[in-house]
Amino acid sequence: MIVEIVSTGTELLLGQIINTNSAWLSEQLNALGFNVMYHSTVGDNRERMARVFAAALQRADIVITSGGLGPTLGDITKEVSAKLLKRELVLHQQSAARIQQYFSSRGIKMPESNLRQALAPLDSIVLANNCGTAPGIIIEDAGKSIIHLPGPPNELKAMFSQEVVPYLHRRYLAQGIIVSSVLRVYGIGESSLEAMLKDLVEAQHNPTIAFLVKDCEIHIRLTAKGEYASEALKAIQQVEPIILERLGDLVFGRDSDSLEMVVGRLLREKGLTVSLAESCTGGLVSSRLTDIAGSSDYVVGGMVCYSNSIKSNYVGVPEATLEAYGAVSEPTAFSMAANIRKKFGAAIGIGITGIAGPGGAVDGKPVGLVYIAVDGPQGSRCFRFQFSGERKEIKQRTSQAALFELRRYALEI
Amino acid sequence: MIVEIVSTGTELLLGQIINTNSAWLSEQLNALGFNVMYHSTVGDNRERMARVFAAALQRADIVITSGGLGPTLGDITKEVSAKLLKRELVLHQQSAARIQQYFSSRGIKMPESNLRQALAPLDSIVLANNCGTAPGIIIEDAGKSIIHLPGPPNELKAMFSQEVVPYLHRRYLAQGIIVSSVLRVYGIGESSLEAMLKDLVEAQHNPTIAFLVKDCEIHIRLTAKGEYASEALKAIQQVEPIILERLGDLVFGRDSDSLEMVVGRLLREKGLTVSLAESCTGGLVSSRLTDIAGSSDYVVGGMVCYSNSIKSNYVGVPEATLEAYGAVSEPTAFSMAANIRKKFGAAIGIGITGIAGPGGAVDGKPVGLVYIAVDGPQGSRCFRFQFSGERKEIKQRTSQAALFELRRYALEI
Repeated sequence: MIVEIVSTGTELLLGQIINTNSAWLSEQLNALGFNVMYHSTVGDNRERMARVFAAALQRADIVITSGGLGPTLGDITKEVSAKLLKRELVLHQQSAARIQQYFSSRGIKMPESNLRQALAPLDSIVLANNCGTAPGIIIEDAGKSIIHLPGPPNELKAMFSQEVVPYLHRRYLAQGIIVSSVLRVYGIGESSLEAMLKDLVEAQHNPTIAFLVKDCEIHIRLTAKGEYASEALKAIQQVEPIILERLGDLVFGRDSDSLEMVVGRLLREKGLTVSLAESCTGGLVSSRLTDIAGSSDYVVGGMVCYSNSIKSNYVGVPEATLEAYGAVSEPTAFSMAANIRKKFGAAIGIGITGIAGPGGAVDGKPVGLVYIAVDGPQGSRCFRFQFSGERKEIKQRTSQAALFELRRYALEI
Repeated sequence: MIVEIVSTGTELLLGQIINTNSAWLSEQLNALGFNVMYHSTVGDNRERMARVFAAALQRADIVITSGGLGPTLGDITKEVSAKLLKRELVLHQQSAARIQQYFSSRGIKMPESNLRQALAPLDSIVLANNCGTAPGIIIEDAGKSIIHLPGPPNELKAMFSQEVVPYLHRRYLAQGIIVSSVLRVYGIGESSLEAMLKDLVEAQHNPTIAFLVKDCEIHIRLTAKGEYASEALKAIQQVEPIILERLGDLVFGRDSDSLEMVVGRLLREKGLTVSLAESCTGGLVSSRLTDIAGSSDYVVGGMVCYSNSIKSNYVGVPEATLEAYGAVSEPTAFSMAANIRKKFGAAIGIGITGIAGPGGAVDGKPVGLVYIAVDGPQGSRCFRFQFSGERKEIKQRTSQAALFELRRYALEI
């Protein structure tokens, strides 16, 4: 069954709002086994909207729209589809009563215009809105369904789950189920990764294997179909272990895991704490670690040591080290990690020093050169990186590398 | 000129990614005076993509696509449009050299597949990618333009600004120009702001005045048309001073100024330095300040003092203060700001303590309660905030408030 999602609203075309409804609906529909093949967005204009609805009904079996069910004159979705499908708009008594009730229960006088929301195309199915006043509508026509949902995400989500999912189950026989699983990878390029898994990608059709580069990571998505969820899951479980074995600790997490989440879980599990001395990242790694709820249990704290005097006077890097090797050097990173660990009494210390650019490069030390040291019960390690990109990207890439090395270190404890 | 934005990528139809490119491009294009009338999304499937491109070229003058320019076999955008417009794909030597250079400068062997990225339809315009390896493409056909941009937002944004905007100006805007100017506002709600400028909004047609709520800020956009840029600019300059006078220091910057940029300029101008003691923001404010090139000139450093023992032993908050008032309190914030300033020898000290949630609330101290103190030559100030939202939003809002108060303080020195 092919689905098209049509978002309506001029504010989307002006870029004032990011369209999150399409992604949410797509995720839900794919999980139910429907194939979402198109997303479209059109403004609050009768002619253009009618043409987009018509095109969608041509190429899809189910068209789901969002937006344009409100009380204002700019809300035209139902009128457009009623005209397109040659249905009269009639007052839906139950909805009218419900809207009146909504206002009176809040002690507000209902604006007359709100009754427009109770209009429905003849012979349509009206969907209750438990979070607002605009009812949803399903029109069945020539074996296809057009489903109108309200635009506000909370109303759309509730109505989809409570009203549309049961309808889809009833109306469209079991389609089979699609299950997908994502492995998150760091520390390898897309083409090298593809080369490592080429045979699997080519041989596999259930699950299919796809790559997605996202920020500094690559996501490997396995998507399987089956009559039941258990069947699709089983197909995934036949391939996933092969990938995990080939990639080893390059795979740091799955699905919505972020690196800071994975590191946080690991530190908590092992009862470890961490403290950080950050120079070129300026506090970014600490900030990412503390994005996670409960991180105060394992993040002791840190120092942002931008100047050399803070590095020596507060973190405790010997001045001789700074003079002999410079602030951006392996010995400085080692000293930062070891000292911040001892000072703050953490299990693991991290030291990060580098040149985020665009200025600051010196002979033999280009922009993007970064040293990351980890110090703890397994001894000291230092990693040298040469990152590319602009200042913020170099900071972001450094933070990703630091979290990844922290994870690798903690895994061994 | 009608524009359609076509996003490609199966991950969008699966709902694994929220489409932010369409909104960003729409905002830019509307500001330039183009009418974005449609957004479409299609997966990595040749037939369906070709049909969506063909439909877009029918109803729009300019079609801008994102995604599908990478090195893998799933990246088919250029092939689809070349076939649709009956153009041969040929190797673009300059791009090939550029891609080879990209890899060799990083000391990595280029995977053979990356050369696919250097293919371009015959007689097309190739757009340089300064953030990645995939060049963009413009094909002009039958008086229309189809513009292919890479999918990663950072690459798309840079290429659009550096390559596509000049192209659009040359090709479409020669007959008159639209200039827009944005004033960035913080510390006031949208309806209050609207009330303060209502008369101007209603009276003005050139420039038009529009509001856009974005993250924790409101952007006031003035858009003027004129035969020449100078004419449009002059129209803006007649209204802008009136707005600036009414809003005073609520306007913190213009166009792409971020708060950290504005604060940085100000500190540099006045020869001031800053150090920070951050608890609930976990280093976020330091990280934002150090996102700016050259920030090492005015950011001395900071401490991320998540635990009470760091607050007392290293920042120097008296244990009696922590015991009597708690870590999240005005006296603690005051002490953090004053101590980090003295210790690190900065002109201004910032202390931030609060409850980012979801845990940590106690009687009388709900999630979202934040104290921000500023200490310096103008004395000490402390601000109490009650923010709403999830953990990351509370951190973000706190960082915005801290930067704003730092700016206000520095303005007075």
